[in-house]
Amino acid sequence: MKDKETFHMSPSQFREEGKKMIDWIADYYENIENYPVLSQVEPGEIIGQLPDSPPLKGESMDKMMDDVNKVIMPGITHWQSPDFYAFFPANTSFPAILGEMLSSGLGVQGMIWATSPACTELETRVMDWLVEMLGLPRKFKSTSTGGGVIQDTASTSVLTAIIAAREKATQFESNAKGARQKLTAYVSTQTHSSVEKAIKMAGIGKENLRLIEVDKSFAMQSNLLKEQIGKDIKEGFIPFFVCATIGTTSSNAIDPIKEIGKICKEENIWLHVDAAMSGTAMLCPENRKWQEGVDLADSYCFNPHKWMFTNFDCDCFWIADRKHLINTFTILPEYLKNKATEEGAVFDYRDWHVQLGRRFRSLKLWFVIRHYGIEGLQFHVRKHINMAQQFTEWINQSNDFELAINPPFNLVCFRHKASDEFNMKLMNAINESGKAFLTHTKLSGQVVLRLSIGQTNTEEKHVEEIWELIKKFTINVLNP
Amino acid sequence: MKDKETFHMSPSQFREEGKKMIDWIADYYENIENYPVLSQVEPGEIIGQLPDSPPLKGESMDKMMDDVNKVIMPGITHWQSPDFYAFFPANTSFPAILGEMLSSGLGVQGMIWATSPACTELETRVMDWLVEMLGLPRKFKSTSTGGGVIQDTASTSVLTAIIAAREKATQFESNAKGARQKLTAYVSTQTHSSVEKAIKMAGIGKENLRLIEVDKSFAMQSNLLKEQIGKDIKEGFIPFFVCATIGTTSSNAIDPIKEIGKICKEENIWLHVDAAMSGTAMLCPENRKWQEGVDLADSYCFNPHKWMFTNFDCDCFWIADRKHLINTFTILPEYLKNKATEEGAVFDYRDWHVQLGRRFRSLKLWFVIRHYGIEGLQFHVRKHINMAQQFTEWINQSNDFELAINPPFNLVCFRHKASDEFNMKLMNAINESGKAFLTHTKLSGQVVLRLSIGQTNTEEKHVEEIWELIKKFTINVLNP
Repeated sequence: MKDKETFHMSPSQFREEGKKMIDWIADYYENIENYPVLSQVEPGEIIGQLPDSPPLKGESMDKMMDDVNKVIMPGITHWQSPDFYAFFPANTSFPAILGEMLSSGLGVQGMIWATSPACTELETRVMDWLVEMLGLPRKFKSTSTGGGVIQDTASTSVLTAIIAAREKATQFESNAKGARQKLTAYVSTQTHSSVEKAIKMAGIGKENLRLIEVDKSFAMQSNLLKEQIGKDIKEGFIPFFVCATIGTTSSNAIDPIKEIGKICKEENIWLHVDAAMSGTAMLCPENRKWQEGVDLADSYCFNPHKWMFTNFDCDCFWIADRKHLINTFTILPEYLKNKATEEGAVFDYRDWHVQLGRRFRSLKLWFVIRHYGIEGLQFHVRKHINMAQQFTEWINQSNDFELAINPPFNLVCFRHKASDEFNMKLMNAINESGKAFLTHTKLSGQVVLRLSIGQTNTEEKHVEEIWELIKKFTINVLNP
Repeated sequence: MKDKETFHMSPSQFREEGKKMIDWIADYYENIENYPVLSQVEPGEIIGQLPDSPPLKGESMDKMMDDVNKVIMPGITHWQSPDFYAFFPANTSFPAILGEMLSSGLGVQGMIWATSPACTELETRVMDWLVEMLGLPRKFKSTSTGGGVIQDTASTSVLTAIIAAREKATQFESNAKGARQKLTAYVSTQTHSSVEKAIKMAGIGKENLRLIEVDKSFAMQSNLLKEQIGKDIKEGFIPFFVCATIGTTSSNAIDPIKEIGKICKEENIWLHVDAAMSGTAMLCPENRKWQEGVDLADSYCFNPHKWMFTNFDCDCFWIADRKHLINTFTILPEYLKNKATEEGAVFDYRDWHVQLGRRFRSLKLWFVIRHYGIEGLQFHVRKHINMAQQFTEWINQSNDFELAINPPFNLVCFRHKASDEFNMKLMNAINESGKAFLTHTKLSGQVVLRLSIGQTNTEEKHVEEIWELIKKFTINVLNP
């Protein structure tokens, strides 16, 4: 459906097609439980149904949506299903979708303040709000020495932090001459793989990333960290970066931030705190004991696109001293010069991250915070944690299953007491049924199943259902 | 407007709010010419109107949209206005907005094939389509040794290419031990600043980035490139990366890809071709003479989010040999292991870029290509180029203005024959009028005004208007 003369879709056609799309999305959420949660297609099944060559002539939206329904939908794994317990939540909400629509509609590119002042200033304000909402240190606020910026993912945030830390440690020598210094970085054996990836990208080298052993709760052992740093210094290395995690991906383990932070302060090492999923828990003051010491962090990130009803991508990254970031990433070619930048009166967020271009992502975050209010967000975080506690109790009461770790928040790691193989079979059977989707990890060398509770529409009844399903499939797998 | 018990917006409430948002967006496009193109607010004006603290209680969409209209809109620079001629286009279209809506609605996270097979396979197919549509080499296709992936921006694409090239040149030593080798990279003095930024991020060091002088058309002088490479080899450096540009940001200059490519082949150097804006011109076969030699490239990118009606972000990146990318970026933690990945039967796009997580961005690109068809896209590219040619003629016929370079595509670089200061005054006067927005650069040390024609709704009458405006303001500035 298009204007024959210009090929464009006119505003009035968009009104019609857009409203159909709204209904399509609303229908999807009303019927989402009817789809198999994990897509059941085989490799190549979708691409095989798509034409080899692009169309010469334009096609109608109806035809395209027909293909969405017939070809694309069977290849969707339904992250927004209330029966999705895999990996981590990537939950969204209708206010977030509306915010993303508005951002698409405005189509502004917020690379510098001047290219849309509201895009920068709303982001700065919303990031300051979140400092309060999460009980983060005042220094992270734009009104202090720091400030927040929306990044795409926690992977990019940690890369940004590593590069800024690298420059701080080398006094900008690595930006100028290359990363030739004997720098060392530190994570636990449980830290997310994105840190290793970033250490490689930043030219530090995997051999210079020290993996510190964890304790029984899978948290970094700070005494071993201190020991390793001492050893490295003795050997002529320059320890420059530590990543501590609040809620590891595998098991939701929480590193002792305060102890790690003290070591970092003593040795003048950059501390980045990755709270990608579990940072959301800090909306509720009763959970903030888990982030004690966060005031010692040089940078911090959490992802509203995981557990705060804001659609992907939306990672919030804060820095204690913004000059480290800006000095590291600034480049000002002639074609981007403008009065506001040259007067230093504004933030130009392209100097706060890898990319130059940026979307107006604070709109969706603003909509989510204002729609739910602090009260509504707290309600849902508490509800998810309560459901995880309920599931934990069932595991504890069961004879066949055991917990791998006592869950602090919304991720339950458990296993059938039988073999690793049995656990994998059980998981695959559930996933292949299409009724729910959960994933696994290995902890202390054993296969462990992960039930990550955080979807927008997951209710108590869904958690009851997955528990029944687990018990039912246990019997099925035992008696095939 | 929310369900009191759950704080969520219900599907039926979303139907209502979503349709209001569709109308808001359609109204915006119908009235876009009534806004000042460049936002006229002062630094701090927007943030000063936003509450210091986040709301405890949820608020209604009506209240939020009221703030959008009153607080946010004055702070918007209207990139989608037909009178936007600044920087580069970041054009969008209604089919792209519908694709982004669908992507938000589905809310899938396509980090690996298994997390939504359609997200990976549609992207692979659409990227293969574009190889045909742009006359790119067959080796870039997924069915050959290469493949395409959607990145956020050309900045990230060049970072990705540099890191893959670094690993190829060092045989993975820099991933393992750090970027300690004496690597050198090459660009022209006109290459986009993102390459310098990426060279720093990747630990290569700015001192090891050689800026090759350009000729009168602002294109890289390949004989000087060859000379510099020879000199560096003699001095013990390892030349590893060249970035050639089809359409530089400042002036749309086109580096001699074929000559540069031959040098790269002889010396076994990675050639990345950046066609971020001008790659779109290759939709029309008559423009492909400008990309002669692109078959010698190891990687290539162009941005449908600039000049192909696809909203930001959407950068298309191809690689000639995908194993270089995958071997560079792969990390497979236990919690991401799955059957399809382990069997090697699928692409897991998280191994093709910096980030782990990814949105379903191919939907909007698929919608755009299918809505317009090759024919519709060609129509608009030709129309934009024709308008730039028309404007060029007016400049050539004028006594007061001169061209800085003969424009190959849609960017006209021109100046009033008076001083630099006069040109800046003229530009600022136009921008402050709110009637149009154009930006400047410096070429051969002189201030040059840039008229970048590529907005979705820019018509001949708009280009006539900006020319009239330029002439009118010239008189005003001369006689204040």
